[in-house]
Amino acid sequence: MSHNDTICAISTPAGVGGIAVLRLSGSDAKVMAERSLKSPTGKAVRLADRRACFAHLYADGGFLDEVVATLFVAPRSYTGEDVVEISCHGSVYIQQQLLQHFVSQGARLAEPGEYTLRAFLNHRLDLSQAEAVADLIESQSQMTHRLAVSQMRGGYAQELELLRQQFIDLAALLELELDFSDEDVEFANREALRKTVIALESKVACLIDSFHTGNAIKNGIPVAIVGRPNAGKSTLLNALLHEERAIVSDTPGTTRDTIEERFFVDGIEFRIIDTAGLRDSSDPLEKMGMERTYKAVNEASIVFILHDAQIPANEFFKRDMGDICGHCKEVDKKMFLVHTKCDLCTPDCDKGIRVSAKTGEGIDEIKRAMVKTVQEKLKNRSDVMLTNVRHYEALKKVLAALGEVRKGMEVELTPDLLVVDIRDALYHLGTITGKIASDDVLTSVFTRFCIGK
Amino acid sequence: MSHNDTICAISTPAGVGGIAVLRLSGSDAKVMAERSLKSPTGKAVRLADRRACFAHLYADGGFLDEVVATLFVAPRSYTGEDVVEISCHGSVYIQQQLLQHFVSQGARLAEPGEYTLRAFLNHRLDLSQAEAVADLIESQSQMTHRLAVSQMRGGYAQELELLRQQFIDLAALLELELDFSDEDVEFANREALRKTVIALESKVACLIDSFHTGNAIKNGIPVAIVGRPNAGKSTLLNALLHEERAIVSDTPGTTRDTIEERFFVDGIEFRIIDTAGLRDSSDPLEKMGMERTYKAVNEASIVFILHDAQIPANEFFKRDMGDICGHCKEVDKKMFLVHTKCDLCTPDCDKGIRVSAKTGEGIDEIKRAMVKTVQEKLKNRSDVMLTNVRHYEALKKVLAALGEVRKGMEVELTPDLLVVDIRDALYHLGTITGKIASDDVLTSVFTRFCIGK
Repeated sequence: MSHNDTICAISTPAGVGGIAVLRLSGSDAKVMAERSLKSPTGKAVRLADRRACFAHLYADGGFLDEVVATLFVAPRSYTGEDVVEISCHGSVYIQQQLLQHFVSQGARLAEPGEYTLRAFLNHRLDLSQAEAVADLIESQSQMTHRLAVSQMRGGYAQELELLRQQFIDLAALLELELDFSDEDVEFANREALRKTVIALESKVACLIDSFHTGNAIKNGIPVAIVGRPNAGKSTLLNALLHEERAIVSDTPGTTRDTIEERFFVDGIEFRIIDTAGLRDSSDPLEKMGMERTYKAVNEASIVFILHDAQIPANEFFKRDMGDICGHCKEVDKKMFLVHTKCDLCTPDCDKGIRVSAKTGEGIDEIKRAMVKTVQEKLKNRSDVMLTNVRHYEALKKVLAALGEVRKGMEVELTPDLLVVDIRDALYHLGTITGKIASDDVLTSVFTRFCIGK
Repeated sequence: MSHNDTICAISTPAGVGGIAVLRLSGSDAKVMAERSLKSPTGKAVRLADRRACFAHLYADGGFLDEVVATLFVAPRSYTGEDVVEISCHGSVYIQQQLLQHFVSQGARLAEPGEYTLRAFLNHRLDLSQAEAVADLIESQSQMTHRLAVSQMRGGYAQELELLRQQFIDLAALLELELDFSDEDVEFANREALRKTVIALESKVACLIDSFHTGNAIKNGIPVAIVGRPNAGKSTLLNALLHEERAIVSDTPGTTRDTIEERFFVDGIEFRIIDTAGLRDSSDPLEKMGMERTYKAVNEASIVFILHDAQIPANEFFKRDMGDICGHCKEVDKKMFLVHTKCDLCTPDCDKGIRVSAKTGEGIDEIKRAMVKTVQEKLKNRSDVMLTNVRHYEALKKVLAALGEVRKGMEVELTPDLLVVDIRDALYHLGTITGKIASDDVLTSVFTRFCIGK
């Protein structure tokens, strides 16, 4: 993949629409566009920086479409190269012909994310910002949008870069000591170095810690609904979704497998998981269903444990709560007790949320409980939140290396040994903003993109 | 539906993409956009005509996206009103939020085709040109694209409008005569009037005549494949499509119902119809299948009659050709004799196309025959071709009224009676370009459009 040629792609979503936009980027973009355009009166067209120009586009010598073409002169463009955006009628035929035409003019079809890759290579944005662009395009909720925007506008990557620079300066002094190792001098202030290492460690640990929540927000907060057969789990799911998603019947065990649905409350995306009912059974199919239920409980951030109000609470607590909680391997989840079928019977228990899918009682309370749980998880955090698996993996390596540096300083390791771990930490830090970027990393980052961005 | 307020819509295809474009049109478009934008350094933004402006868009007080906004000052815009195009990141969330934001600012969500409707109301294009825009967006082949472009650029509507103007002038003189009817004067030159009527009649008749071909091109040229059971009809269909579309077996009568598939050859769209085999049968299901076969033959522009090369040609001609041709009610269709299974046996007939789906022999010849048929249909026509049912119906009424005028002149009808038919013809002519347009017509024309155009 060359980065010097001129590339083209349709940047708008695939399909038919009122208009579509083709993007040309590269040193020949202006010439290629001007060669293909004529004014409505048949004169040659000269594109000026950032001026929208109405023109007729000719492909293969024939009139193809009336278009609006806008030139963005390098380096003040998205990619940092000359970019021409051509807005045409959104027919599939015209879009195809436009692409074919510019390919025949010498342009190459852009790979997914190649515009943003060029923006990165031309220092218009760093690698974590480029990744945020992909997140931004994928975002479906207010929360994911906010996370992507914060990352795109710099976010924690800039903070990390600042710390990395300090760290590099100190490490350089340490490396200098190596050259004078016979003379036993100390250029690098060990106290300043220790403080920087600790500041970095704390920052990185905090980011790693935020990944669980950040990732859940990005992919939807998992919410499990569990309980005995016929406790009203599918009915609750349907009530939350306002649709007949899950089959509901009086027969206990109607839901065999877990059912997952996404929905939004207050701009937060939840993945709500209806599970098979829990009971002693030797039926292998039912056992498989229950294992999936326990798995869902373990992976969930929020668990609603359903109690059929018609069953004595004591019996329920003794039998079901123990069973469910006994299968929870992690503590970082919020559990809610929910009494169902409250139109039929008043539960003999003061705690918990009372719901009736029939009358609608308690459904809003359930939603408020979900939102509140997420807000509390967010309250103790800064704006900065890690959502990217690649960053998460890199930061875990950074933290490990920093731990080695700190331990090495405690036992007064010689500079040559300290430097090895420091270089390791610097390397992994550098991969996040792309200061250090192998072709493999670039490929894996940019293939996530859609074509035309 | 008011036509004075400011409307907004996403004009690019629905879905996720690199970028999406929102269009604002109306007197408040500029103010609404400027209120929502800030420069990257936080300053107020002033949009200038046709200048692409990079800015930050704030919705609900919060940062929503980095956008490029371009103002097109009235009347030099698509709609003839102030238009602002905002190019944002193509996430579903951002697109929704942008729309919601401008609605909260007082804009109204645009109806399908409302931008083009406003362009029509502001005399940026006539009604037939507006309809061509919808055709252009829907076009999937070179042919349909060419027809839409010719109509959009004026095409026959301008010619008609010219004739209509001449006609109006003559009719006005005729009406003047009515005011002086006591004095028996002739203001309108009867010979000029007669010539105009005849010119209009000839033009309109030619257009009506082109509808059959034009409409077929727009919707795909219908091609029927017919023959005895097991003559290889489905095999030929599959060979043309390069895929296993129809189930093929040695059992005669495998294809029960007609199967229709669209495909393109040389930029022309064909609807190719595989039919049930024809044979004497008392099975009601098979009889139904055969009736559909005859229907397909009648509606087709091109018919391939298949002859299994293993069967003596004489027998085939006597039995099958008569049967098929006996069911053809129309003459304006091209029939081809096709000998199939030519890898097994050489047909005892010199005429016709020899094919073998197995070896691929003759498949290209079949395609060439299809393209040639269409080209010949087009050869005797001018560029102008009628593709629009609404125009077709209007022109038939025009032709009838013109016939009445001509007949009236022949029998020297009094001006007051002539004027009635002339007004009738003028009325229907006017509906084509929208000089005369009822709300009903406008509604039916513009609801065909996609949102955002």
